[in-house]
Amino acid sequence: MNAIDKFSHLLSLTREPFPASTKNYLIGSQPDVRVPVRDIALTNGETVSVYDTSGPYTDPKVGIDVRQGLPSVRGSWIDARGDSEYYAGRLRVALDDGRKGDADDIRLDQLRAEAAALQRQPRRAKSGANVTQMHYAKRGIITPEMEYVAIRENGRREWMQQYMQDTAREQRLAGNPMGANIPRIITPEFVRDEVARGRAIIPANINHPEVEPMAIGRNFLVKINANIGNSAVTSSIEEEVEKLVWAIRWGADNVMDLSTGKNIHTTRDWIVRNSPVPIGTVPIYQALEKVGGIAEDLTWEIFRDTLVEQAEQGVDYFTIHAGVRLAYIHLTAQRRTGIVSRGGSIMAKWCMAHHRESFLYEHFEDICDIMKQYDVSFSLGDGLRPGCASDANDEAQFAELHTLGELTQIAWKHDVQTMIEGPGHVPMHMIQSNMTEQLKHCNEAPFYTLGPLTIDIAPGYDHIASAIGAAMIGWFGTAMLCYVTPKEHLGLPDRDDVKQGIIAYKIAAHAADVAKGHPGSRSRDDALSQARFDFRWEDQFNLGLDPDTAREFHDETLPKDSAKVAHFCSMCGPKFCSMKITQEVREFAAKGMQEKAGEFREGGGELYIPIQPVA
Amino acid sequence: MNAIDKFSHLLSLTREPFPASTKNYLIGSQPDVRVPVRDIALTNGETVSVYDTSGPYTDPKVGIDVRQGLPSVRGSWIDARGDSEYYAGRLRVALDDGRKGDADDIRLDQLRAEAAALQRQPRRAKSGANVTQMHYAKRGIITPEMEYVAIRENGRREWMQQYMQDTAREQRLAGNPMGANIPRIITPEFVRDEVARGRAIIPANINHPEVEPMAIGRNFLVKINANIGNSAVTSSIEEEVEKLVWAIRWGADNVMDLSTGKNIHTTRDWIVRNSPVPIGTVPIYQALEKVGGIAEDLTWEIFRDTLVEQAEQGVDYFTIHAGVRLAYIHLTAQRRTGIVSRGGSIMAKWCMAHHRESFLYEHFEDICDIMKQYDVSFSLGDGLRPGCASDANDEAQFAELHTLGELTQIAWKHDVQTMIEGPGHVPMHMIQSNMTEQLKHCNEAPFYTLGPLTIDIAPGYDHIASAIGAAMIGWFGTAMLCYVTPKEHLGLPDRDDVKQGIIAYKIAAHAADVAKGHPGSRSRDDALSQARFDFRWEDQFNLGLDPDTAREFHDETLPKDSAKVAHFCSMCGPKFCSMKITQEVREFAAKGMQEKAGEFREGGGELYIPIQPVA
Repeated sequence: MNAIDKFSHLLSLTREPFPASTKNYLIGSQPDVRVPVRDIALTNGETVSVYDTSGPYTDPKVGIDVRQGLPSVRGSWIDARGDSEYYAGRLRVALDDGRKGDADDIRLDQLRAEAAALQRQPRRAKSGANVTQMHYAKRGIITPEMEYVAIRENGRREWMQQYMQDTAREQRLAGNPMGANIPRIITPEFVRDEVARGRAIIPANINHPEVEPMAIGRNFLVKINANIGNSAVTSSIEEEVEKLVWAIRWGADNVMDLSTGKNIHTTRDWIVRNSPVPIGTVPIYQALEKVGGIAEDLTWEIFRDTLVEQAEQGVDYFTIHAGVRLAYIHLTAQRRTGIVSRGGSIMAKWCMAHHRESFLYEHFEDICDIMKQYDVSFSLGDGLRPGCASDANDEAQFAELHTLGELTQIAWKHDVQTMIEGPGHVPMHMIQSNMTEQLKHCNEAPFYTLGPLTIDIAPGYDHIASAIGAAMIGWFGTAMLCYVTPKEHLGLPDRDDVKQGIIAYKIAAHAADVAKGHPGSRSRDDALSQARFDFRWEDQFNLGLDPDTAREFHDETLPKDSAKVAHFCSMCGPKFCSMKITQEVREFAAKGMQEKAGEFREGGGELYIPIQPVA
Repeated sequence: MNAIDKFSHLLSLTREPFPASTKNYLIGSQPDVRVPVRDIALTNGETVSVYDTSGPYTDPKVGIDVRQGLPSVRGSWIDARGDSEYYAGRLRVALDDGRKGDADDIRLDQLRAEAAALQRQPRRAKSGANVTQMHYAKRGIITPEMEYVAIRENGRREWMQQYMQDTAREQRLAGNPMGANIPRIITPEFVRDEVARGRAIIPANINHPEVEPMAIGRNFLVKINANIGNSAVTSSIEEEVEKLVWAIRWGADNVMDLSTGKNIHTTRDWIVRNSPVPIGTVPIYQALEKVGGIAEDLTWEIFRDTLVEQAEQGVDYFTIHAGVRLAYIHLTAQRRTGIVSRGGSIMAKWCMAHHRESFLYEHFEDICDIMKQYDVSFSLGDGLRPGCASDANDEAQFAELHTLGELTQIAWKHDVQTMIEGPGHVPMHMIQSNMTEQLKHCNEAPFYTLGPLTIDIAPGYDHIASAIGAAMIGWFGTAMLCYVTPKEHLGLPDRDDVKQGIIAYKIAAHAADVAKGHPGSRSRDDALSQARFDFRWEDQFNLGLDPDTAREFHDETLPKDSAKVAHFCSMCGPKFCSMKITQEVREFAAKGMQEKAGEFREGGGELYIPIQPVA
């Protein structure tokens, strides 16, 4: 099998719906607001409906050709607003793909030819217009994107009702929102208000009409981001797109394309055109490629050109390390691990070499001018984040955070949507102050953290060391968690590492939602626990984050199909089952003790119920 | 290869020392107080010394024959106290191994013959004496066990000094002990005092002289427990012992033998005689076997006999579900998943069938009388722990906890060491109240929790869902964390699952130690971070919790040996490395900005330092 065939095959597998699952759509106030949900059919007739990040890939009714890109979701909404226009766009040059007109260009020509059908004419705001969701929100306009987000956050609430009825239990389990203010039902107006005051963003470049809108904010479900990057030698569109589809299948709400090196422009076309989730990038990486990797040769002009290039392609948010100011660099000198952010070190190098203030900081308003023409959101990078626990919460880190707060105000003045990146490496007891400092200085702009890792001695298991910190900071108010894979600090994640990282972060995000008391978020837990108690094994697998692995683990010990309906499991075996006794406890409580005690003894007092075939 | 050969081979592999590691001993005030540490030799000449649970197995100088058992550590200390005596002991019967004199007994005879050399004459307290560590502690006696624990908790503090000198950093990183009171140096007197007031236990049955003493208490390092159980068909001593050795290799501080079914008495001989860590059991499991699995046929006499049987074998702590009182059972009737503790449901069944108060509760002082003759510690079981998030912190759970507090007072009256078991399934925001309730009602007796799992939707990944809760409750004051493996709720853990569970829990325990500010606990993190920053790859692997996996992951991307000394890694590659820039920042900070800026540009401004062979 050649590489293209291999990844075409892999992609077809990755497109398979989850077991017992059907992709359905909740329809909004207009027929083209079609919000995806995954409905899981249980063996007891119940249907559990869950948030679905996987896009049209898991919808067998949608034909997808990665060489054509996904169908548009938002195109007509953008058209209807009438405040943007198509234009010729920037001329694509060889250097965009890291080439200099040498012999490699034959390969580049091939790659570009592969992506030919993915080329789109870019659009931007009409002169003087501002096309950001924040701009509309501040003017009181509820966009279809906002309505879409509201429907998506609520999900199919009907099925949850049965799990939300017991008032005594609900009171006992009421979350601790830690300052969040999540309404019982998310309305489009609530979404608008959150976006208007900067407490949430909807990353949605007008050149990425394929995106299924989603929100990042402390009063919404906690989201996760997965990073992907191009291969050393890119083999095909199929390979790059398969990575993306794999990540969103397991639940990535956002994907950052951190590609470096050759062919990154063309690869980005492939990814954006085939992505139903927002795509983020770190434009300084590409800018650095354009100057041959020499940080001090970077200029504002080259950087600006790269922003426009990527904005025209449809990138939804840019990581911009504008808080790495000249004056802060010496604060890292006594650190154990110095500057560990790649973008941060590029900018530190530039500042040192020129002994000048960062051009990102100096040109921040110019950057805002670009962002608002396309509705690219800021992800203000934490270039001075700690690289180990021993550097956590130090002067350099917080000096930068305070600057990011100032920059947030400037971005908001331009109605540019903004989130703030956070650490990194932070011991558990120091996590909360990261959140309080961020809330205070950045006025509740969404926080987007990498972990944090709580300890440094777990190379090979940093997805776990960081899931602990991620869950906690998510509870405290972080809106999006950037995943960490088991390969962190050691190497490049492969396909399984990506999955392991995503599952660990889905756990962290969900644990945070439950702790915050996001309405209905516990319902899936309750449905699964009920399935567990009822010995509905298939339902238990299918309601989990990874049905394949749950089923596989179960079958290692009890592989027979009959065991899937058995009223026991391999932990206790058929002879004695602790769960079954509760059935008796219930009768016992109902009938009164004495009566039941006699009856129980007469009946043989045995708890095991023989396997019954499913009717 | 037959089964015995296979496990003999596996055991020989499991006995290999960790890479670059040497087992050494810290000597106490008498030459036979020899406390193991694992010294890791770094490539920069430094030696990092870590807590070592692996026992003599990783000491190549010790010859071990699992058919003879481990050498005695404490025998002479027990002798010297002169308050116990050897006696004939209870007569071993076929039923102890779940047999009834049928044809199977030929196999049983073989198994018993295998264990023949492991038979020891039991000892117990002389008439009227009390041989518990708590009894000595209350009388002001510092035992060798207490001194051993003090040395073990401190470790080799000298190497840590270089990581503990920067006062400004230490202040910034000072832990939040959450009410713990951990002295900078643990003295034997401190250990005595903690044991005397019941805030710590040293599980150490006088019939388990092979044990290397360790402490469980909120003012000591957080410990972890791993569960093992016998195979359906036990093949050999080697197989059972290999499981134990595997678990302690990766860091299990305690092991619970949860075997059920046939041959459990004989298997327990194998395990205890070969275990350097305390062994815990749930005696009701064996008692239930003796009455053919019929809970209501259990009697105090059968249970009592089982306690004596296991105490004579050397079990260090017993899980006793004496808090499952008749009056509490109906409180579980409205739960989503009822009673999920096996021991709890056995007792609930008994109470219901007889409509009587639990015989464990009624005979609690009789149980204390047995415990103090052997120094078996209580692990008061939480038979009514929640089986899902929706049942967390309910009336049933806390009613039992309050009873466990009352029982703790009774146990302490008898000077019996006691810890308290805790949940289970608890969302993040409800974890802290578990700890505060426990501290309050059980007067700081050590808490020993199973996780808790923070969500219910992660079957296949419950080691991660629970490591989050475990880290948090460890920080809040839990003294020992019972591990959860990826197979939880699905099947029986295999060898790799055990390792995955242990590593996840070592992460949780260490994260808790760091957050509490256990003196010196962060030093290993700092040493590893420094190695990372210095690109000492081998040191980074060897300082981690699992050097094998870290090395393997690294080598997948950069397999060549030269890459192990490369000044870059596969994340950024040789062209640009964010860590190297800090070297320049340091010079920059030292020399002044202007001067350095010019020099930097003249020097070509390149950050990559070519690979240098190690001198």
